[in-house]
Amino acid sequence: MSKTHNFFAGPAILPQDVLIEASSSALRYQDGLSLMEMSHRSQPIAEVFEEAENLVVELLNVPSDYKVLFLTGGASSQFYMAPMNLLNANETAGYVDTGTWSTKAIKEAKIFGNVEVIASSKDKNFSYLPKGFAEPEGLKYLHLTSNNTITGTQIQEFGTYKSRLVCDMSSDIFSRPFDISKFDLVYAGAQKNLGPSGVTLAIVKKDIVGKVEREIPTMLNYQTHIDKNSMFNTPPTFPVYVCLLTLRWIKKLGGIEAMVKRNAEKSNLLYGEIDRNPLFYGTVEKEDRSKMNVCFLLNDDKLNDAFLDAAKKANIVGIKGHRSVGGFRASTYNAMDIESVQALVDVMQNFEKVHG
Amino acid sequence: MSKTHNFFAGPAILPQDVLIEASSSALRYQDGLSLMEMSHRSQPIAEVFEEAENLVVELLNVPSDYKVLFLTGGASSQFYMAPMNLLNANETAGYVDTGTWSTKAIKEAKIFGNVEVIASSKDKNFSYLPKGFAEPEGLKYLHLTSNNTITGTQIQEFGTYKSRLVCDMSSDIFSRPFDISKFDLVYAGAQKNLGPSGVTLAIVKKDIVGKVEREIPTMLNYQTHIDKNSMFNTPPTFPVYVCLLTLRWIKKLGGIEAMVKRNAEKSNLLYGEIDRNPLFYGTVEKEDRSKMNVCFLLNDDKLNDAFLDAAKKANIVGIKGHRSVGGFRASTYNAMDIESVQALVDVMQNFEKVHG
Repeated sequence: MSKTHNFFAGPAILPQDVLIEASSSALRYQDGLSLMEMSHRSQPIAEVFEEAENLVVELLNVPSDYKVLFLTGGASSQFYMAPMNLLNANETAGYVDTGTWSTKAIKEAKIFGNVEVIASSKDKNFSYLPKGFAEPEGLKYLHLTSNNTITGTQIQEFGTYKSRLVCDMSSDIFSRPFDISKFDLVYAGAQKNLGPSGVTLAIVKKDIVGKVEREIPTMLNYQTHIDKNSMFNTPPTFPVYVCLLTLRWIKKLGGIEAMVKRNAEKSNLLYGEIDRNPLFYGTVEKEDRSKMNVCFLLNDDKLNDAFLDAAKKANIVGIKGHRSVGGFRASTYNAMDIESVQALVDVMQNFEKVHG
Repeated sequence: MSKTHNFFAGPAILPQDVLIEASSSALRYQDGLSLMEMSHRSQPIAEVFEEAENLVVELLNVPSDYKVLFLTGGASSQFYMAPMNLLNANETAGYVDTGTWSTKAIKEAKIFGNVEVIASSKDKNFSYLPKGFAEPEGLKYLHLTSNNTITGTQIQEFGTYKSRLVCDMSSDIFSRPFDISKFDLVYAGAQKNLGPSGVTLAIVKKDIVGKVEREIPTMLNYQTHIDKNSMFNTPPTFPVYVCLLTLRWIKKLGGIEAMVKRNAEKSNLLYGEIDRNPLFYGTVEKEDRSKMNVCFLLNDDKLNDAFLDAAKKANIVGIKGHRSVGGFRASTYNAMDIESVQALVDVMQNFEKVHG
């Protein structure tokens, strides 16, 4: 069977080497046991967590005043956990509204304190990122979404802000370097560039925790997980292990800089074809285009099904666009090889020959 | 290599058939993709969740006014989520304190309402279960822990209560039948009888939800997950899939009644040896002994290391007791075959010949 080209937005493609090793460890890891059968208090699992944490620190240059956590509940849980831990009821956080995920984050934050939406691109269906907006004094933090999976926008560079930053990096963490010293908190569901679903990465500046007045349930307090190295309760051991394998793979390929190069090649190839091919157009302001999720439409949307058919025949899966945007979305995360993007470009070019 | 006998308390032994199929699906499931690479919105994953939910309903005879949920965060998260969803600030819940887990549940519940600890076995290091205690009128619910992993006690039969019940069944769900109509909520971390760590089962009586006055974050509201069939956000797809495989295995072996028989044989064999062998004694009141976690000590605790060594030579892992009890704990969950218990009994008998 020829290779399947996996463009799902998440859970998403994982490196083949990772899948082979994960599959093997799901059957036998150490002492004749599956990794899934081993106590989280056993030495082999403790070593998995320690190495995974250390690799995040190494790959992202995380300084020692931050703590890397492996949590559960996805970014959707960080939407409330961040303000619950950081924002007193009488304090104000700023949010930049750039799509579905930030809109959800705003809704949850309002339960805990004052929320000021200081910029939004809702006026154009989130097809661009607001820039040059005024930043009020005295915000407890400013919340950003680095990459928007649904609409395909991405902050190209984190600029200079007066406020401390909290950022949802679910869909582009480990795709590029960033200066974490600007951030009080970075969080990411694993199921794009890091691993399978079921684990959430959080990188927390340690001295921001414990400063709100409300009583926080033990499991929802970042301090609990900082103190216990993500092992306060039984963590999702197998998902964290698959993250470890992915982190090792990133390092082996040359670290974050290698991912930058890899992702630039893929997105240049695909956006190049979208801009060249008269049948297609991109949905996003060019300067805000995501290197992770490439959204595009057919000028003639009556051809949509024919294009999906042609893609399917080329073993391409997961390119149907989100219902709020329509058309097509090709997610080209770290693990995707350029040959898969080339396969999609080939389909677009053949489609032009038939329908152009 | 000879078989490893896995007595870990959790994450714990899984059936070999489950591990073989999980390992295979971690590499290739459908369309040439690993199950871990597939969108939770794809048809194959939707079918995994639907079948898993239906099998829980079938195996436990769950009536249609209840909803089966696959959540994250473990029982430790249900400790706060249950009172957050069910208990108004001016209402009172009753808790029976039978060990570490109920003590933690009590701590979290106090954040949300009034808690009355109506019985406790703390006076004897939780080595028995309180019985015949007075049950006050007007409790919003009564919280029980069906099986205590650390001390090895287990409620043998759920009696008759005035109050509606909320129960932590993490370590013995699917080991025996129970009448769910007495319960408003049953919850269980998966990593004992159900699957790997990273997923939490909750069975919620639908009409109990939405009756508290506080504002609940979206992800923490049972109603969110009831409405979206556990797919409000990206769920832990692979862990849920492994639960599905385990549920199929339980059904294939004959359902819950087959588990009852299987577990009785194992615990009779092991408790029989503990009671017969003059070197050992059980730590728990006989009438409260757990069929899942068998706790026992050596009369001469200077022999502890020698016994652990002897067990290790017989490929027995995971029998060191929790530090709060000491000695040994053999967890004999559904997936364990009687031959593993026999291997442990053989070691105990050989140990008697040498040290008796």
